[in-house]
Amino acid sequence: MPKIVDHDARRLEIVHATWRLIAEKGFRATTMREIARASGVANGGLFPYFRNKEELIGATFEHVFAATNERFAAVRADLEGMAALRELMLQIFPLDQERILEARIVIPFWEYAANEPDLLALHERTMDQWRVEIGSHLADAKRLGEIRDDVDIPVVVDHFMAMLDGVQVIAVVAPASAAADRLTRLLDGYLDLLR
Amino acid sequence: MPKIVDHDARRLEIVHATWRLIAEKGFRATTMREIARASGVANGGLFPYFRNKEELIGATFEHVFAATNERFAAVRADLEGMAALRELMLQIFPLDQERILEARIVIPFWEYAANEPDLLALHERTMDQWRVEIGSHLADAKRLGEIRDDVDIPVVVDHFMAMLDGVQVIAVVAPASAAADRLTRLLDGYLDLLR
Repeated sequence: MPKIVDHDARRLEIVHATWRLIAEKGFRATTMREIARASGVANGGLFPYFRNKEELIGATFEHVFAATNERFAAVRADLEGMAALRELMLQIFPLDQERILEARIVIPFWEYAANEPDLLALHERTMDQWRVEIGSHLADAKRLGEIRDDVDIPVVVDHFMAMLDGVQVIAVVAPASAAADRLTRLLDGYLDLLR
Repeated sequence: MPKIVDHDARRLEIVHATWRLIAEKGFRATTMREIARASGVANGGLFPYFRNKEELIGATFEHVFAATNERFAAVRADLEGMAALRELMLQIFPLDQERILEARIVIPFWEYAANEPDLLALHERTMDQWRVEIGSHLADAKRLGEIRDDVDIPVVVDHFMAMLDGVQVIAVVAPASAAADRLTRLLDGYLDLLR
């Protein structure tokens, strides 16, 4: 058992040490050799932890997902309904340099996931978690009278999921449209449509 | 002059012959050798047309963008306002196998564009075209009284652009959420929020 814990902890350390390098340089252009060097591992020393780039991008995506959820947990306090939903979105949206780097991880992850069933399953698992969370805040918002009674919650969850993915793309490949205040207006403008 | 035309025509032929191969197999896994073979060119014969995968993914993205616009031109007829906007979205949304393959081109294109200024500029140019078109249909819709007077058009254009990118992602990496009728409900549910 301790061995497994050590192994997982070491994997996580490697991801912590290298995800910014990957994001800045681009996943395609970053070599396993550079990742080994940045995480202080000898050449070939990555292999017990990540056999290939597919495994590395999966673990890096998990790291970004967990980091977002930790940010949300830290600011959520006793928010509910629309306030909780808005705060969750603000933590996922690429509103600062750190989160733009996170978005730069997500795009190559999608490309790998398109062709790797394990990564596709990981993507599904994580997105389902957000889907449920968004739906539950919307149900609270409806109960609290913060949104109109005729709002179709499953459809609105689909809007949020599409916009979440879309703003990651925009932050990376349409940076002129992705100033933080503009993305915040995008979010608040959508929330207004539900009231 | 004829030489340039031939050159461009040959590039286009290569893209026509290979984009489905790239989409099905994944851009990363498709080699320049396979693309040469699929387009009936000798090994190394691609080089005068595409020096590297960056140039090829750029040309393939342009092909997908043009194909979408041709589909829209073919069905648009004399539609205007909300009807024109809905039809444009239906042509971009990944609602059938052909368009899901197109979405599979767009994701690796984004990854390359994130790190290649020429591809980023191409992306900007094409998306600006849609941005202007969406804004103009919304302005018509407002003039025709099809949407509320207080709808903030620039913000709504941003919603559409984010959702357009998002549904491409969903079709490729969350196929369970991307049935054609569900994506159509997503679109119609959003349009209803504007009325």
